[in-house]
Amino acid sequence: MARPDHGARTARSGSTRRQFLLGGAVAGVGAAAAVGGDTALRAAAGETPPEPLNGDRTVPFHGTHQAGVATDAQAHGLFVALDLLDGTDRADLVRMMRILTDDAARLTQGEPALADSEPELAVAPARLTVTFGFGPGFVERAQGRGPDWLRPLPAFGIDRLDPQFCAGDLLLQIAADDPLTVAHAARMLLKDTRSFAAVRWSQQGFRRAHGTERPGTTMRNLFGQVDGTSNPVPGTADFDRVVWSDAGWLFGGTGMVVRRIGMDLDTWDRLDRGGREQSVGRYLGNGAPLTGREEHDEPDFEATTAIGFPVIPEFSHVRRARGEPHERIFRRSYNYDDRPVGAAISRSGLIFVSFQADVDRQFVPVQRRLDRLDLLNEWTIPVGSAVFAVPPGCAEGGFVGETLLT
Amino acid sequence: MARPDHGARTARSGSTRRQFLLGGAVAGVGAAAAVGGDTALRAAAGETPPEPLNGDRTVPFHGTHQAGVATDAQAHGLFVALDLLDGTDRADLVRMMRILTDDAARLTQGEPALADSEPELAVAPARLTVTFGFGPGFVERAQGRGPDWLRPLPAFGIDRLDPQFCAGDLLLQIAADDPLTVAHAARMLLKDTRSFAAVRWSQQGFRRAHGTERPGTTMRNLFGQVDGTSNPVPGTADFDRVVWSDAGWLFGGTGMVVRRIGMDLDTWDRLDRGGREQSVGRYLGNGAPLTGREEHDEPDFEATTAIGFPVIPEFSHVRRARGEPHERIFRRSYNYDDRPVGAAISRSGLIFVSFQADVDRQFVPVQRRLDRLDLLNEWTIPVGSAVFAVPPGCAEGGFVGETLLT
Repeated sequence: MARPDHGARTARSGSTRRQFLLGGAVAGVGAAAAVGGDTALRAAAGETPPEPLNGDRTVPFHGTHQAGVATDAQAHGLFVALDLLDGTDRADLVRMMRILTDDAARLTQGEPALADSEPELAVAPARLTVTFGFGPGFVERAQGRGPDWLRPLPAFGIDRLDPQFCAGDLLLQIAADDPLTVAHAARMLLKDTRSFAAVRWSQQGFRRAHGTERPGTTMRNLFGQVDGTSNPVPGTADFDRVVWSDAGWLFGGTGMVVRRIGMDLDTWDRLDRGGREQSVGRYLGNGAPLTGREEHDEPDFEATTAIGFPVIPEFSHVRRARGEPHERIFRRSYNYDDRPVGAAISRSGLIFVSFQADVDRQFVPVQRRLDRLDLLNEWTIPVGSAVFAVPPGCAEGGFVGETLLT
Repeated sequence: MARPDHGARTARSGSTRRQFLLGGAVAGVGAAAAVGGDTALRAAAGETPPEPLNGDRTVPFHGTHQAGVATDAQAHGLFVALDLLDGTDRADLVRMMRILTDDAARLTQGEPALADSEPELAVAPARLTVTFGFGPGFVERAQGRGPDWLRPLPAFGIDRLDPQFCAGDLLLQIAADDPLTVAHAARMLLKDTRSFAAVRWSQQGFRRAHGTERPGTTMRNLFGQVDGTSNPVPGTADFDRVVWSDAGWLFGGTGMVVRRIGMDLDTWDRLDRGGREQSVGRYLGNGAPLTGREEHDEPDFEATTAIGFPVIPEFSHVRRARGEPHERIFRRSYNYDDRPVGAAISRSGLIFVSFQADVDRQFVPVQRRLDRLDLLNEWTIPVGSAVFAVPPGCAEGGFVGETLLT
């Protein structure tokens, strides 16, 4: 089966783990058989299950980089930003990150957290990743020095920011192909942080479910656009150059931008298909540039129509987003679809997430250009914005943040 | 592949449909090739795709019963209740239900709605079902006569109802294995209702993702409990007796209860495992009754401990829920996990959904018993409640609600 998992593997211990967990409760009251439906029965008989379960697939937690960046994006992503409590000091940060690392390592491998109150909900990791990011306040409390770009983004004219979706000292990105797995992991990890920090904001997003589309399909946002075509490809030198930092304690880490962008689907609907394609500079059907046939064709910004106008309009998103060769980012966004209020049909948008080694050098110039002129601005409103430094991964026995905190 | 789909099939026209849709946009501007990644290429070469995509699977729309009741529950469920606008009359109801039926029939088969603004989002039905329910206000406006039970449930002592999650004239249950499919279908259907009704409330729920667990596994709620063990099994005479009505225009339809039940996970956490199992009357590990070994073992309510106490406590949920043989319901619930506010770790619960032919005769006595005494009441708070009559399905060319409206 050719699934480009970027590090995912099928948990070999799935059945055993389940059998142990499920049998445990019964054994505790003296009953004889381990139970767990046909899974345990099959395992006992030494039979192979009929097909691999998505729920059993895991992404390694330990490594040079944290998981959840180069990982093929999972279907569900939860972004929780926390503020450190006043009394939390540097030693507390070490304690907190040790506990969080330990529980994240367990949960991502399909094992219950250390004091897991619902261990049965931990048995299906479904490619769970937990990625930690540090805001300016975290680095300051750690008595460290952050990269220059670790501060709020400059104010953009299109922004209508709501403080309830901005900033934060510590970010948890919790992502998996199963929504129950995400909910359970979030609860366990937030219990770990309870003595040190309080939730500032949280945002839930989704992409296509695992298995809806063939792997490698670029995601579509709720405007129906393919979103992320020009992304560097994980596993290539290009990706490594765009994403991974080589600066000080952030070596092997990256910079993360999280922006909440409301999309006005109700007015977007009034635009015809041609207008939409002009505003983006790509065909809606397959995401090909207006000068090409296939999604990944290079846009030809010089091409003109018979009467001399550019085929890809000056105001189009694809043209405005393109800049100097170093102005590139890796997007890993999620859709959101909140309950509409009042007469609105929808309250939807994009949790825009991008990773780049240097936010100021790579992200900000692109955003400045889009801020000045991008037809898509007509239907999109940034309402949240935050920047985090994502530290490198750690080896077994270590903890995420150790390069800053030790 | 043995998947008990209860009526699902793999869309045979998947590739063709995609090819048409994706090729259409490009053809419209004069480009030559139909495109759509490897799907279209494979289809063009006459090759079979390497494995069936979950996204391509469909549940038939037309039939004696509406889909979405006996259908094996999908991973994502959206429940939207609407209030009819003042001017909406009986003729408008016919118009609205015709349009809704028509678009639901298309969308569930992976085809765009009639005026679909984002047709590319419609190509992956992922077992989408759309189920319509009528509240008392709808039946009144239709100048019809509803069953006696079609009214708000009696007030229960445990209820702390919030009007924003109660009642409604028209319910849309939109469920699929893909969250983007649900979001898109909801938007298209709510555009259809815009001239006739306004959103009163909506609730988004989830279960395990498709492929996380083997088919037939009973869902777990966020307490970690298996939830729905004693459900009648779709396709059996037992199920038909419990669920389908034979009364008047509701013949082939059913009664639907939707209750939003907040679950206080933060205090539930303080209860130890033994205490939790006593409160439910089942083992958490595999859902077996405290007198049994397997989930589906019949509870033995007579069994006593060595010192004479009942093994399944008097106050336990499983004992209190059990009543006369006719007091049975079919549960098809979804979890929810909203953004926590303030210092709370979670704001989670259950969108309790049950189907039964006669709400007064089957559901109400059970709920009355649970209201009087059920240890689970300590950690659960009903905050929403609504009752709907789910009309029968329709044949091609007909519309849902025709037995009431024509």
